[in-house]
Amino acid sequence: MDNLLIIGGSDAGISAALRAREVAPSCRVTVMLADDYPNYSICGLPFFLSGEIPDWRALAHRTREELLSQGIRLLPNHKATAVRPENKSVVVSSSSREKTLSYDRLILATGAASRKPGHIKGLNTPGVFFLRWMADSFAIAQHIERNNPTAALIIGSGYIGLEMADALTRRGLAVTLAGHSQNVLKTVDPALGRRVVAELERNNVRVVSGVGVEEIVAADGRLMAFGTGGFQAQVDLVLVATGAEPEVGLAKSGKVPLGYSGAIKVDRRMETGVPGIFAAGDCVETWHRLLEKSLYLPLGTTAHKQGRIAGENALGGHKEYAGTLGTQVLKLFDLAIARTGLNDAEARLEVFSPLTVETQCWEHKNYNPGAHQLHIRVTGDRSTGVLLGAQIVGHWQAGVAKRIDVFAAAIFHGMKVEEVEQLDLSYTPPLSNPWDPVQMSAEAWCRTAYP
Amino acid sequence: MDNLLIIGGSDAGISAALRAREVAPSCRVTVMLADDYPNYSICGLPFFLSGEIPDWRALAHRTREELLSQGIRLLPNHKATAVRPENKSVVVSSSSREKTLSYDRLILATGAASRKPGHIKGLNTPGVFFLRWMADSFAIAQHIERNNPTAALIIGSGYIGLEMADALTRRGLAVTLAGHSQNVLKTVDPALGRRVVAELERNNVRVVSGVGVEEIVAADGRLMAFGTGGFQAQVDLVLVATGAEPEVGLAKSGKVPLGYSGAIKVDRRMETGVPGIFAAGDCVETWHRLLEKSLYLPLGTTAHKQGRIAGENALGGHKEYAGTLGTQVLKLFDLAIARTGLNDAEARLEVFSPLTVETQCWEHKNYNPGAHQLHIRVTGDRSTGVLLGAQIVGHWQAGVAKRIDVFAAAIFHGMKVEEVEQLDLSYTPPLSNPWDPVQMSAEAWCRTAYP
Repeated sequence: MDNLLIIGGSDAGISAALRAREVAPSCRVTVMLADDYPNYSICGLPFFLSGEIPDWRALAHRTREELLSQGIRLLPNHKATAVRPENKSVVVSSSSREKTLSYDRLILATGAASRKPGHIKGLNTPGVFFLRWMADSFAIAQHIERNNPTAALIIGSGYIGLEMADALTRRGLAVTLAGHSQNVLKTVDPALGRRVVAELERNNVRVVSGVGVEEIVAADGRLMAFGTGGFQAQVDLVLVATGAEPEVGLAKSGKVPLGYSGAIKVDRRMETGVPGIFAAGDCVETWHRLLEKSLYLPLGTTAHKQGRIAGENALGGHKEYAGTLGTQVLKLFDLAIARTGLNDAEARLEVFSPLTVETQCWEHKNYNPGAHQLHIRVTGDRSTGVLLGAQIVGHWQAGVAKRIDVFAAAIFHGMKVEEVEQLDLSYTPPLSNPWDPVQMSAEAWCRTAYP
Repeated sequence: MDNLLIIGGSDAGISAALRAREVAPSCRVTVMLADDYPNYSICGLPFFLSGEIPDWRALAHRTREELLSQGIRLLPNHKATAVRPENKSVVVSSSSREKTLSYDRLILATGAASRKPGHIKGLNTPGVFFLRWMADSFAIAQHIERNNPTAALIIGSGYIGLEMADALTRRGLAVTLAGHSQNVLKTVDPALGRRVVAELERNNVRVVSGVGVEEIVAADGRLMAFGTGGFQAQVDLVLVATGAEPEVGLAKSGKVPLGYSGAIKVDRRMETGVPGIFAAGDCVETWHRLLEKSLYLPLGTTAHKQGRIAGENALGGHKEYAGTLGTQVLKLFDLAIARTGLNDAEARLEVFSPLTVETQCWEHKNYNPGAHQLHIRVTGDRSTGVLLGAQIVGHWQAGVAKRIDVFAAAIFHGMKVEEVEQLDLSYTPPLSNPWDPVQMSAEAWCRTAYP
């Protein structure tokens, strides 16, 4: 096993390559990628499009030279079209030629593609965009520069939709955000989703919920969008941000088994059902630490972790992925919105009897200047007392993200909600309270659960 | 046990009283305190003296009315002078009278006193201050207002010394900070202590290390301080901040056993060696979760936790204190300095074979505007791989305190350093990295430990 081939040059693929070179410096590690942008931070694309990051080159986690200096062979602009496990090879189309690459071990890190909702007509109309890869962002940037659009419609109120609502507002566009769901940002409970809507509206984003956009047509040099309930909007740019689907064409070609979600099925060593073929990142089903089952939950942090494990195990290692908790944070104008574990609705769908309690408290001693309020929702299991999840909304400089991380560390270890108060957390009046808001909200949960 | 008497009205005492009323609403709970300021945040005093908190009344965690509404009886300006366990009573001097109060259960929450170094002459000179209680801060505030001092000497470079160097600088005084130790802020390793010195000097604080102040004398309406190595300073205010000593006079009067450190010895239920007498906060020896032994480590967060446990157990509960990790954070001008667990020197004194690795990294993706650098030191045990401690220095808005809390949660659960990379922490480019700095520094430790 001295010839490792990795398909995909984003977070999972490059993490795998770097780790492989670390554990086996003599191994030949080749990363094949469909575009020309290895190791770029696609999570950073909204911040490039907002103008906050002026140069897209800054999005590279590492330069091409740094990757090469780690002994990684790069094959950019190489699109793999089929995997043939029976003779350990991959069919590749590069420019016009077709060729075959052999491997001893293979890692599929093909990522995900933007979902293209079949019920929306006119998705191919010029001015309608998706956002996943570098090329998508270049197309949007070019459209903005050339056509100087003044109004945008964003379809979908998940992470990318919200980040782009912020980004395009910063670029001076009037933004309408239309979502199919009644709730904006379904990853948090509706009570916090309403705070997200308030922040959007405070920044002049028009938020339209419970609307299915049905058609987009070009008219008079602009775009008209029509949807359910009489929805219509005249804009100059449409971004469709309705989620991601795992890229599994290649896996299918090699009869690599998929899971119930349609993503590649892997064990906790990140090995697929075909021995010697590993997979990681947005193309796989991810082990959930709390639910103790796999589901499709593509996240950049997860891709990095899984890639590293796949890289190690492909070369003979025995590392196990500890599992995701779906920890996420989003910055939206002046807010940060974070979550970990399960929210109330998610917990209800599982075998838990969840109780969710919301607490409003000061981020630090409110006698100190500059204190912000945090809104924290703690979800615990009524019968076992186990901490299932937490969500926080507050000012982006009020420690929202790192407080979610404290909850994430607590859930990782299976803590009960009432045990959280025993954590020895830091305190000084300008930065916290003697009981950190993490602990105040856990205590509030206990007061409700055990009155 | 329907008559609970608590001596001390600061963090531990009030926490105990509130918890007692929670678990046994019919219980008579009396809090006796030596001064007139129940439930004030003495951690906030430097921020009152700096002028950042204009009104000292804002330092109250709760008003007197809120405490009374919880059914707590308050006896302010009552100084307990002796405990008589043999007949379950406490001798009290209030104004001129002496009286006796009986109890069924007693909680000692007498706190600590400023250490008065015997080797310094002239500590009673007008203009020389200590800082522990409200009265101390009023005296300093009055001195500043009346005498308009222009220069101050602070003796001691621990938490209070540093916070007061910041505070008095903000008030326009020229500050000299003189410490006996070669290192400023001994709670962190010297490498980070040097960054603390740089921040002090950047803010025009004169830092003098390795100096023992020997004498303070009044001269020409000012104060002259003299010390080892020819040290001298002419100032208008001296603050002696050389640490705290547990207030154990009352415990001694009742033959309540002390530990080796001189503080009250308690078990993990916060009960002393005298059945029915509990103790909590700055007057007790505290169970250290990592060291699995008790030591004197007075902290506000600990006092709150221990008080709550003492209040519950005094009324028949069976709660155990989970232990301290010595987690602390300090804001100093633009820096936050935080630590948890053991630093390198502390670990060396114990049965560990510590390795400490320092990492410098960006707090969030450095392509994003406003990124700050963090300096993180991770201490782990070479033989077991267990995480022993972490220290972070960085901009106070760069998530220093909450990142220490992630480390604190990891140490709480006995994680190995290499397991930290598996924590599912939050990420968005403006707020972190795909591997949070917590994980980057843990990985750097592993690369050094397992090359």
